[in-house]
Amino acid sequence: MTSLEIIPITGIGEVRPGDDLADLIIAADTEVRSGDCLVVTQKVVSKAENRLVEIDPNDPFSHKPLVEQESVRILRRRGELIISQTEHGFVCANAGIDLSNVERGQAALLPVDSDRSARGIKDRLKARAGLEVAIIVSDTFGRPWRRGVTDVAIGCAGIGAIVDLRGTNDSLGRELMVTEVAAVDEIAAAADLVMGKAEGIAVAIVRGLPAEWFRSGSVKDEIIRDPADDLFR
Amino acid sequence: MTSLEIIPITGIGEVRPGDDLADLIIAADTEVRSGDCLVVTQKVVSKAENRLVEIDPNDPFSHKPLVEQESVRILRRRGELIISQTEHGFVCANAGIDLSNVERGQAALLPVDSDRSARGIKDRLKARAGLEVAIIVSDTFGRPWRRGVTDVAIGCAGIGAIVDLRGTNDSLGRELMVTEVAAVDEIAAAADLVMGKAEGIAVAIVRGLPAEWFRSGSVKDEIIRDPADDLFR
Repeated sequence: MTSLEIIPITGIGEVRPGDDLADLIIAADTEVRSGDCLVVTQKVVSKAENRLVEIDPNDPFSHKPLVEQESVRILRRRGELIISQTEHGFVCANAGIDLSNVERGQAALLPVDSDRSARGIKDRLKARAGLEVAIIVSDTFGRPWRRGVTDVAIGCAGIGAIVDLRGTNDSLGRELMVTEVAAVDEIAAAADLVMGKAEGIAVAIVRGLPAEWFRSGSVKDEIIRDPADDLFR
Repeated sequence: MTSLEIIPITGIGEVRPGDDLADLIIAADTEVRSGDCLVVTQKVVSKAENRLVEIDPNDPFSHKPLVEQESVRILRRRGELIISQTEHGFVCANAGIDLSNVERGQAALLPVDSDRSARGIKDRLKARAGLEVAIIVSDTFGRPWRRGVTDVAIGCAGIGAIVDLRGTNDSLGRELMVTEVAAVDEIAAAADLVMGKAEGIAVAIVRGLPAEWFRSGSVKDEIIRDPADDLFR
């Protein structure tokens, strides 16, 4: 197992509806190489895909109807906070709707299909620059039981969402329950360490991941837990 | 924001009760530098601190009474799986008791106080080698709603558990809810990417973190959510 590098991509600048993120990444200051995994934040994916909606800039709660609209199931409410399941199957605060770092009077919805968003960026980087990379779309979620937020993967392409880092079983066959590592979530978390939101870093490179992790992958298919198997839904 | 490196420490070998992890780290193949953050897995901390207990090697469920004993509250049961709150305040499967990569007939309990374990390693690295480093003790937890496990911090020393990566508020003051990033959890997740459990990497270096993150810190005080504030307990 060799070392990894986590490298922020600088020089992308403000992303606007209709922008092509692959073009912006190719034109940025930081060189991307085949074999890299790029982590792209939801915020710029939602902006590029024009998932922006107008809200009343003078009403701090004007996004609340959007939260209800984007939710298929409300799990908890406390004060202004809603924890809900989105139609994608994510459980998160306020249906993943983002009011920070968008223009006043706008809210950013989650991409319609973040796996597809990731595939699009991956395919365009290949077509335009010959780059063979994996793409993870990341977002910032809270967790039950633990304070603070962490970045997780909401979409991926060219990398397995789950990888088996462990032996399949020990001498008593007892390790089977914990063999599946959510690699894309760990990679998204690692990338966030260089994002420094205030500095506007929206894409980071994770360089040095094992070659065998690069395969077709999907957050929707691999990470989202079937509600029937879920003890907390 | 500069790049990060995630570097596995090789050559530590099998850890046994009474071993001094600081000595083992100093003697390992990989050079540690002041300013590094070291992530040390719970398994080797529990072994070094002799948190091993004997279980019947012929009874695959002989650790179950231990799980009950180490739990202060059971949140969910399904089949053999118990999700409980430990006396430390962690909510996890099987009270964090580890049966993998320990000898047959043994189970590893969580350290009594992982923040204290981290401080001990940090202080001994300073005393013996003059190294000024941060230490995170990591463990592998599942999550509700998302498949796959990820590594999180169960103890830390010399680094803030929570850091503020974001602006404190946007023009409408709406960003306040998501300003606190669980940096130690993201660092633990990043380190797991080079751990490759089968290869026996138990310690990794995260090099290049912002200097301002290095302060006294505590997972217990900063990360564990007060049950009264918790929507899922």
